[in-house]
Amino acid sequence: MSIITLSHGSGGNATHQLIEDIFYKYFYNDILLQKNDSSVIPHVKGKIAVTTNSFVVDPIFFNGGDIGKLSVCRTVNDLAMSGAKPLYITAGFIIEEGFKINDLEIVVESMAVTAKMAKVKIVAGDIKVVEKGSADQIYINTTGIGVIKKDIYLSGKNAKPGDKVIISGTLGDHGVSILSKRENIEFHESIKSDCALLNDFIERILDASRQIRLLRSPTRGGLAATLNQIAKHSQNSIVLQQEAIPVKDDVRRMCEVLDLDSLYINNEGKVVIIVPDKEAQKVLKAMEKHPLGKDAKIIGEIIKDDKNDVILKTKTGEKRILNMNKSGLLLRI
Amino acid sequence: MSIITLSHGSGGNATHQLIEDIFYKYFYNDILLQKNDSSVIPHVKGKIAVTTNSFVVDPIFFNGGDIGKLSVCRTVNDLAMSGAKPLYITAGFIIEEGFKINDLEIVVESMAVTAKMAKVKIVAGDIKVVEKGSADQIYINTTGIGVIKKDIYLSGKNAKPGDKVIISGTLGDHGVSILSKRENIEFHESIKSDCALLNDFIERILDASRQIRLLRSPTRGGLAATLNQIAKHSQNSIVLQQEAIPVKDDVRRMCEVLDLDSLYINNEGKVVIIVPDKEAQKVLKAMEKHPLGKDAKIIGEIIKDDKNDVILKTKTGEKRILNMNKSGLLLRI
Repeated sequence: MSIITLSHGSGGNATHQLIEDIFYKYFYNDILLQKNDSSVIPHVKGKIAVTTNSFVVDPIFFNGGDIGKLSVCRTVNDLAMSGAKPLYITAGFIIEEGFKINDLEIVVESMAVTAKMAKVKIVAGDIKVVEKGSADQIYINTTGIGVIKKDIYLSGKNAKPGDKVIISGTLGDHGVSILSKRENIEFHESIKSDCALLNDFIERILDASRQIRLLRSPTRGGLAATLNQIAKHSQNSIVLQQEAIPVKDDVRRMCEVLDLDSLYINNEGKVVIIVPDKEAQKVLKAMEKHPLGKDAKIIGEIIKDDKNDVILKTKTGEKRILNMNKSGLLLRI
Repeated sequence: MSIITLSHGSGGNATHQLIEDIFYKYFYNDILLQKNDSSVIPHVKGKIAVTTNSFVVDPIFFNGGDIGKLSVCRTVNDLAMSGAKPLYITAGFIIEEGFKINDLEIVVESMAVTAKMAKVKIVAGDIKVVEKGSADQIYINTTGIGVIKKDIYLSGKNAKPGDKVIISGTLGDHGVSILSKRENIEFHESIKSDCALLNDFIERILDASRQIRLLRSPTRGGLAATLNQIAKHSQNSIVLQQEAIPVKDDVRRMCEVLDLDSLYINNEGKVVIIVPDKEAQKVLKAMEKHPLGKDAKIIGEIIKDDKNDVILKTKTGEKRILNMNKSGLLLRI
């Protein structure tokens, strides 16, 4: 059978065959194969980080990745942002009747390969099938568990006036890649999603300085939404230097075509770092040595200000408030 | 605004307002309110149980519960089935554009109330909005984390010939309640889902005997699918006495109307227990003392047999093999 049918969601033979043929085949590990109502994992020595994300990206295959790779990268990255070493992931699938089993296999293999690269085990899973028209191909939830070994607590609350804001690389690549493919814009193949595992890179960053205030992944809502959250959380404002913010030329052009602002577009392989001024250069140098940080830039700083705004300073000295709302209808990215 | 719009999924102000007004309001706890990419939970002393479930039940409101209550009960119960004390839950929402915010609030409050009863904290969440027609109202993923304090390992592999099979109560209540409401069958109000938290009840059962082989929740595919999995896992067969299996009269009648078999219908407040013969009466007595176990019955036993079948013996002595397949099209229960 080459497509998902309602019988794959029934809990009967078809469900179990699908689990054996696709999910166990790629996700195979001793914990998953306990086959009980819960999976038992060993004792975790340290505080635990937990995060959950649902993925509804459209299209599910894009330049630089697919929904499977994305679903593992994001959750691994969110764990890493807390200073955690990612250990385990769960995977919940909602699949539309009629979805190609070949496509499912590509997605599942992609998750397995990415999980292996991140050194995380997929320890529990669930599959639901809904009728044609009750979902769009496939939705995935991943929930991640990691261990915080170092004695650190990274949080927006830590950010202080004078701290520098560093971004690890160019903005907008993922969202623009998805949108230009979805809209079938000419030359959309030239733009590649930045979807990547950041856990090793984050470890290097945390090794470079013990004074990192916080790490955040500028995903939904892009840099603008992420920094607005940090500003509110820290009860300060943030000033950005527009000319310092790295954006690829192709992405900039595509943003013009699609009438988008790269500051509001989500990224899947970038990290925003808040660090004390005196540590900023050291951290930047460490980042530049890593392939994922070669375009890293100091782009702004925290300032004392009750408004908790994010302010963009242009080359000509103009100031623009970046509120959270511009992202309007960037859905299913 | 009284319905979910695409802007609630954008990551901008509408998203954050919705999170504040609905999710933080009901799920409020110190861990969730860390507001970072991951939530940090304290060190867990012991082995950890993990489980994940996605919920696509249709209709979302039914006699005896709703998708919110169900999403917490099932995940708490799956943790309890491993002998774990449930501690933390994550919640991922996929919401269809146009869904009523009032309904969302009812669902979220129901999750919060159920989580409080189960003494679990909802520590991380995620919301995605998809266009009208790309989901059916609301889908929820819950992933649970629990701690296994006792030195037990419950598994289908433990089941041995001679062991007894106990069911904690009547079969089919949940699935028949959902299906009869979905089909708008007359008198569907007479049948109530058994959706319930089993964690306290399971604790009593595990206190009653230290020799419990395994606990399983007969959800999707019902008792028949669950016992087939146990038979395969333990490499034995299981014989059931049909007249011992408890089914409510109303459920039995509705099964006739809907052409269903109560053995294949999922339950959301029941547990199947495999226990050595000599412990069975003691465990049964302990169960009967609890409101959730008042209809508990010994319904069969494990027999040595290479076929790994589940065999139903009727009153007249006939034998019928219960394979996994009959559940065919019982979807979104």
